[in-house]
Amino acid sequence: MVHYKLTYFLSRGLADVSRQLFHLAGVEFEDERLNRDQFLERKESFPFKQVPVLTVDGLEIPQSMAIARYLATKFGFAGKTPEESALVDAFVDQFKDFYAEIHDYFYTMLGFTQLDGEEQKEKVLIPARDKFLPLLAKFLAKSKSGFLVDSGITFADLIIVDDMTTLINWWPQYADGYPEILAWRERVMNYPKLKEYIEKRPVTMA
Amino acid sequence: MVHYKLTYFLSRGLADVSRQLFHLAGVEFEDERLNRDQFLERKESFPFKQVPVLTVDGLEIPQSMAIARYLATKFGFAGKTPEESALVDAFVDQFKDFYAEIHDYFYTMLGFTQLDGEEQKEKVLIPARDKFLPLLAKFLAKSKSGFLVDSGITFADLIIVDDMTTLINWWPQYADGYPEILAWRERVMNYPKLKEYIEKRPVTMA
Repeated sequence: MVHYKLTYFLSRGLADVSRQLFHLAGVEFEDERLNRDQFLERKESFPFKQVPVLTVDGLEIPQSMAIARYLATKFGFAGKTPEESALVDAFVDQFKDFYAEIHDYFYTMLGFTQLDGEEQKEKVLIPARDKFLPLLAKFLAKSKSGFLVDSGITFADLIIVDDMTTLINWWPQYADGYPEILAWRERVMNYPKLKEYIEKRPVTMA
Repeated sequence: MVHYKLTYFLSRGLADVSRQLFHLAGVEFEDERLNRDQFLERKESFPFKQVPVLTVDGLEIPQSMAIARYLATKFGFAGKTPEESALVDAFVDQFKDFYAEIHDYFYTMLGFTQLDGEEQKEKVLIPARDKFLPLLAKFLAKSKSGFLVDSGITFADLIIVDDMTTLINWWPQYADGYPEILAWRERVMNYPKLKEYIEKRPVTMA
């Protein structure tokens, strides 16, 4: 049997999507969670000097979305045809662009910068949200599955919804103007096996 | 026969990697290049209101790396095993993070901001380079192929090298402290079929 170890911080961050995939697929894995000191001690040993890292029978794979895509492809949550997989990847990359755009807000809320949270919310979060969420809503409106692509739930739904949980933790009204997005979020979070995982996972803000 | 159309600007940007994949594979495609006015006229009609867009028999796929991964997977330039493909994806995502980090330098050089190019070079480009290039060098040093992964050239080599061409156009000394990176760049640019394509493609700064 393949031995999987996922190394990350205590938080959900960009790695919980991979934990969720293991739970959805019912595949065992070692869920290694580091505190800051433990991370710093091992930082130089990681392939890109950062986490998450997935270790597959000794081979280390870095980068959260590369890890998630690898697991999603193995477990059947990355689209059903090459074209659908490309669309899933497109949503993930659009999310990565959104995430880069809101970097200053995110890092402020995590306490990594001295910027003003309210100001960053107005300046970067709201404009980025009002560009990103309508794109998702457009695709959801024509989806046959209620998820981003027609064949069902994928790691694109998981990562975007989980990041939204963080944004809503910081600002409960984050998606109030987008009822169809909130309905989709409920659909994802109530998905069989995922719901049980979410209910018992450690509660963290981010 | 599948009809492919790649829609982008006149420049290389983040789409030339996909043009390169078509040339490497010897597969015909419609190379649609828009000027700014043509783009603005059609902007609202694109899936994510941006280019590149790859149209495959009428289906539109947005996002440059999603497009490149789709083509690379079809044409055999995305790694030879699931684990190698994950590593390729990790390099691509690391590149996307690097690209996000140097955003202010990049957009200044493109003339999209009023910031000072020299200042942005010192402030964002050099620190990001000194984080990114050593990671690549470490993998290249142990690669069996001379490319980022053991089995040979992939779209990760193509995208990172092509972006490096832009950075060197703006600052010829960009990679002078990294001889092994420059040697790898030569290896990629002299790869059969790619060399001929690069020699005849339109010359653009970015």
